[in-house]
Amino acid sequence: MLSRRCYPLSSILTEDKAYKICMKYEIPIPEYQLIQNLEEALCSAAQIGYPVVAKIVSPSIYHKSAVDGVKLGIKTEYELSEAYHSLIQVARREGIKDAKIMIQKQAPPGLEVMIGATTDPQFGKVVMLGSGGVYAELYEDVTFRLAPISRNDGEEMLSELSLYKAFQGFRSLGPYDKEAVVDLLLKVSRLVTENGEIDQLDLNPVIIYGNGACAVDVKGILSRRIESEAQQPNVRNIRYLFEPRSVAVIGASGTPGKIGFEVLKSMLIHGYKGRVYAVNPSKKQVCGLKCYSSVEEIPDTVDLAVFIISPEFIPETLERCGKKGVKAAIVISGGFKERGVKGEEAERRLVASARRYGVRVIGPNCMGVFDGFSRLDTFFQPSERMGRPARGPVAFITQSGTFGCTILDWAAEQGIGISRFVSYGNRSDVDEADILQFLAEDSKTKVIAMYIEGFGDGRKLFNTARRITPLKPIVALKAGRTALGSKAAMSHTGWLAGSYRVAKSALKQAGIIEAEDIQQLFDMVKALVKQPLPRGDKIALITNGAGPCVMASDEIARLGLKLAIPRRETLNELKRMLPRYCQITGEIVDLTGSATSKDYEIAMDLLLSDDNVDVLMVFFVFADAPLDENIIEIVPKMMKHGKPIIGCASGGVYARRMSSTLESNGIPVYETPERAVAATYALVKQSMMSRRLQGKDPGTAYWNVS
Amino acid sequence: MLSRRCYPLSSILTEDKAYKICMKYEIPIPEYQLIQNLEEALCSAAQIGYPVVAKIVSPSIYHKSAVDGVKLGIKTEYELSEAYHSLIQVARREGIKDAKIMIQKQAPPGLEVMIGATTDPQFGKVVMLGSGGVYAELYEDVTFRLAPISRNDGEEMLSELSLYKAFQGFRSLGPYDKEAVVDLLLKVSRLVTENGEIDQLDLNPVIIYGNGACAVDVKGILSRRIESEAQQPNVRNIRYLFEPRSVAVIGASGTPGKIGFEVLKSMLIHGYKGRVYAVNPSKKQVCGLKCYSSVEEIPDTVDLAVFIISPEFIPETLERCGKKGVKAAIVISGGFKERGVKGEEAERRLVASARRYGVRVIGPNCMGVFDGFSRLDTFFQPSERMGRPARGPVAFITQSGTFGCTILDWAAEQGIGISRFVSYGNRSDVDEADILQFLAEDSKTKVIAMYIEGFGDGRKLFNTARRITPLKPIVALKAGRTALGSKAAMSHTGWLAGSYRVAKSALKQAGIIEAEDIQQLFDMVKALVKQPLPRGDKIALITNGAGPCVMASDEIARLGLKLAIPRRETLNELKRMLPRYCQITGEIVDLTGSATSKDYEIAMDLLLSDDNVDVLMVFFVFADAPLDENIIEIVPKMMKHGKPIIGCASGGVYARRMSSTLESNGIPVYETPERAVAATYALVKQSMMSRRLQGKDPGTAYWNVS
Repeated sequence: MLSRRCYPLSSILTEDKAYKICMKYEIPIPEYQLIQNLEEALCSAAQIGYPVVAKIVSPSIYHKSAVDGVKLGIKTEYELSEAYHSLIQVARREGIKDAKIMIQKQAPPGLEVMIGATTDPQFGKVVMLGSGGVYAELYEDVTFRLAPISRNDGEEMLSELSLYKAFQGFRSLGPYDKEAVVDLLLKVSRLVTENGEIDQLDLNPVIIYGNGACAVDVKGILSRRIESEAQQPNVRNIRYLFEPRSVAVIGASGTPGKIGFEVLKSMLIHGYKGRVYAVNPSKKQVCGLKCYSSVEEIPDTVDLAVFIISPEFIPETLERCGKKGVKAAIVISGGFKERGVKGEEAERRLVASARRYGVRVIGPNCMGVFDGFSRLDTFFQPSERMGRPARGPVAFITQSGTFGCTILDWAAEQGIGISRFVSYGNRSDVDEADILQFLAEDSKTKVIAMYIEGFGDGRKLFNTARRITPLKPIVALKAGRTALGSKAAMSHTGWLAGSYRVAKSALKQAGIIEAEDIQQLFDMVKALVKQPLPRGDKIALITNGAGPCVMASDEIARLGLKLAIPRRETLNELKRMLPRYCQITGEIVDLTGSATSKDYEIAMDLLLSDDNVDVLMVFFVFADAPLDENIIEIVPKMMKHGKPIIGCASGGVYARRMSSTLESNGIPVYETPERAVAATYALVKQSMMSRRLQGKDPGTAYWNVS
Repeated sequence: MLSRRCYPLSSILTEDKAYKICMKYEIPIPEYQLIQNLEEALCSAAQIGYPVVAKIVSPSIYHKSAVDGVKLGIKTEYELSEAYHSLIQVARREGIKDAKIMIQKQAPPGLEVMIGATTDPQFGKVVMLGSGGVYAELYEDVTFRLAPISRNDGEEMLSELSLYKAFQGFRSLGPYDKEAVVDLLLKVSRLVTENGEIDQLDLNPVIIYGNGACAVDVKGILSRRIESEAQQPNVRNIRYLFEPRSVAVIGASGTPGKIGFEVLKSMLIHGYKGRVYAVNPSKKQVCGLKCYSSVEEIPDTVDLAVFIISPEFIPETLERCGKKGVKAAIVISGGFKERGVKGEEAERRLVASARRYGVRVIGPNCMGVFDGFSRLDTFFQPSERMGRPARGPVAFITQSGTFGCTILDWAAEQGIGISRFVSYGNRSDVDEADILQFLAEDSKTKVIAMYIEGFGDGRKLFNTARRITPLKPIVALKAGRTALGSKAAMSHTGWLAGSYRVAKSALKQAGIIEAEDIQQLFDMVKALVKQPLPRGDKIALITNGAGPCVMASDEIARLGLKLAIPRRETLNELKRMLPRYCQITGEIVDLTGSATSKDYEIAMDLLLSDDNVDVLMVFFVFADAPLDENIIEIVPKMMKHGKPIIGCASGGVYARRMSSTLESNGIPVYETPERAVAATYALVKQSMMSRRLQGKDPGTAYWNVS
């Protein structure tokens, strides 16, 4: 339960004041008057017209219903008089001296929604829309966007609600005025953006009609906090993290298995062409390199310092690096913020040292950097245990070193080329937004993937990502979903704005494609790298075994994608040209277990030539004896149509060999239908993103795709 | 919209009749009287006491609100008189001659739910519980169980609703009387079970109070259909499908790549020790075997006939097989029901031929059977393209041949032994329930996995599975989830009972563990085969890299499992014995990237000795240099504790090699945290199932696990 009075008196934005602000922003509210006594009450009810509502207004009561401070449906003078006396008693019982009473027009019934705004600790002002009353919480029917929102954002918000069905007309409900809701969302967005002191705002309920809307109950929380301006990403010196001319490995060791050894080894044997210096005061030589006792001793400029020494020595050593002109540092060592209060202090000193000399820092407590082009490599995983991928178009930014290893290893094995790879750990200085900005301007990077646990400056990340996504896809996996953030917040909106809900909305609003797990993240990247973007969301399916298509159809529906319905001529041609055993039902072309590669060729060619098909998913049971291996040549040839082709095949050694041969010829092949559909989803999403944010698409397509 | 009158007059169970039946079953309803005129109305309202409700009762109106046929909250004689006249007008306007008017006590407000029953075409009578009014549909907050239900079923139903939060007390709502809902569900279950003619029943809304409940609106649909008795599974001759002494391959071919060749080859070279005969009138010899022109010509008894001939010849040939004494047949050929009306007729003839002589038939349109023990093998996938697994404890029943190939290939590669494997295609005679019953009695089978698209006789499958699941786990993947079944049904309950919703409930109620995709199906089977069942649902996590544990914790929460909180002594010992770099936060023991196998040994041993830990999940970043390969020996040793251990590791060649070595030593290892948690979920579920259905657990644990 919410406590009724946990805010200081002055911080509640009372109904009357809230109404005044609403009027300024043309938010429709019911006609009302504040009254001093029963006489005035009767008088104002007569002016307003029955039925009316009477309620207590006081800066010391936020949840009026909880103290029985609202009287609805007053139809007569007699009932008003009763209500008045009852409210006076409530005020007395609750000991409220500053209570006023408000008489307002009882709004006719309609559909109730809840509109609000709150201030998220990571993202700042956010706008909320949910089902009315307690339903938003009970059914978790609520959605968020970062303010200020666009009309398209508002439309998306509405279409995300379960309640949206009612707006379109559902059973005895609706239709209701969608535009009125979107207008209100835009107005609330402007209101909280222009009035920074309004920390939280609840319009609950807002009653929606077939035409128009009315915010019958409005209240808010004021704050004296000053919201800081969103930071701009800072790319200064970041290129030295990827392409330094020289590197000092501070804490280099000669003992295999030790991290100081493995990092130095990675720097030396994985193709990095810059100059590498080992630093360790207690050694003369490691791995055949002269060992310097300090960074100052190195007779060369040093662009990048990599730290694998005890945390207590790092701030001072970093300072000395700064003095020497080191541009950037990667602190692999742990023992900082992740270790609690004492570690936090150490991390603060580390950052202070770095800032004093403008040294940019990745880490601490991270794996560091792998660069596919310069071959810089600070990973302490030996290459016989974890592969290093070739150079290529994918950048990966990860808060978890472990998932970094996974992705790097998969990329190496499956031939996905990497441009820049950063495991940033505690994110003491360089953050995701700084790296994103660098990648945005990096001609070597075409697709960006991220693994995020928590946000540092969420708004900075959002602003940066939003500029990038129309041009380069960003795919992200967000972990830590179940921790509900501001549970103790006073307003409904605050309570509902669990950190993951807001984060999820922010990712979507920024045009970032969200993956559900690490496998899906990689799957989506693979499709984005290998295949062109589709022109639409209509998917055709070809198979030689029905089961996976059934599962794929379920998943296509769940993700809001569409099955393509080929043109009648295409269907006729398919029936004419394919053998009798093939089953052509419309959405799915089932070539059956008797299928040959020739059948695939005919079906793929016809479907890809059809304007009603935007994406082709091709399923293979490679084990089926009739399917000859010419299939390997035929499928990639179909890329001539310029439409994306996504493959799906499962099984053991033979199936994997066939799949990976297809992959090396440019066709991504996934092991389950769900994975193939998720990859397709990423292509469709990115296509919509690039068209919408480039202004080629007014955004209405979004109404139907979640 | 529902049409208001699509049922013949006699088939609506009107309010007054429904109330009478409710009274018989002690379902609480409001006090009411049927009245003839205004005089009587006033009189009965005076007796009942205001406020009252007045409504039209007529066998020709199902949805009274839709015609404005209900007047709520009548407080005075004047209001009653107005309401009466208005209802008379409604009756006149709608042309209802047989309308009566009912006066009933207005029930005080409370929490509204909807309770109902309907007759599912596949499963028969089902009971429904949902949020009240339109919310069940809008928020899809509804759940089903097959009637008759147990008290435990009722409790589970309630706990599955989003609305359940309100029952426990949520914001201004509740708590409400949970027992009253469960009692009502049990009564409705008994009512529809004992009154077969009640096809559908809606108690909507039922108002729930802090103490007690009231079904204020009750109506139903009567049907003249007679529900057939549930079939019993028939295992007659099924063993000949797996262990025939002799097999005739009808349609054997000598041309590689042809299905008739590949099937014969599979029968000959994969270890089957019985006698194999080739039948093909146009050949003298195939694959070195004499070729018989007909099955009669074979100078031996034939237990099993495998058909790979044109569909038009099959019914007659099958009949001749029956005459010869063939016990069972596998029809691989397609061209039957899956081809529409003409195929259906052919399939009917096929079944008639088989039934005439008691020949049991698998198929048509299937891959047939693989038996891990007899090595019978009718698959037309050559072994160089699809592996054949060793003998072992897992039976797999699949409606899709394609998924059959996938599972068989994975099982072969990952060393999961198979007992019986059936791809049953069109299911013309032998169905899942028949096979399940056979497997229940089959000492070679310990774990059963199924892939299901549609049900034949759902109730038969349910009854059969329910008897098996306490003893042998059944894991199932149900495809075809998005097709909503009886959309056009008249009652709300009917409308909500989309086929997948009911099927999902039936699987759960039968104790079947549902997998979300084919990969998860296999993952769950692997855990059930390799690991013991846990005593509870508390999961401890050990890792040398945090990221996957964050994802795992999200998934553990999502699936309603629990993180273990080790005892204080265990935590102290962990801190004392592990190196300083380890982070011991309680739920997760993070040994960090510096971890050695010794650290794993200490942590595993301590956590597995802790009574608060039921399952141990162990995550590995095998790539990390400090982790030595002794880990391979250490982890399996920990099975001595008798608690399940689930591994998780991802990556490329090296990680896979380490994982598969662990697997061959008995520890299942999954590539993503989500997959590892799903496998754990299966173990926990089966443990609860076996305890609950064996009566060792009263079932209350189910309140908290969905």
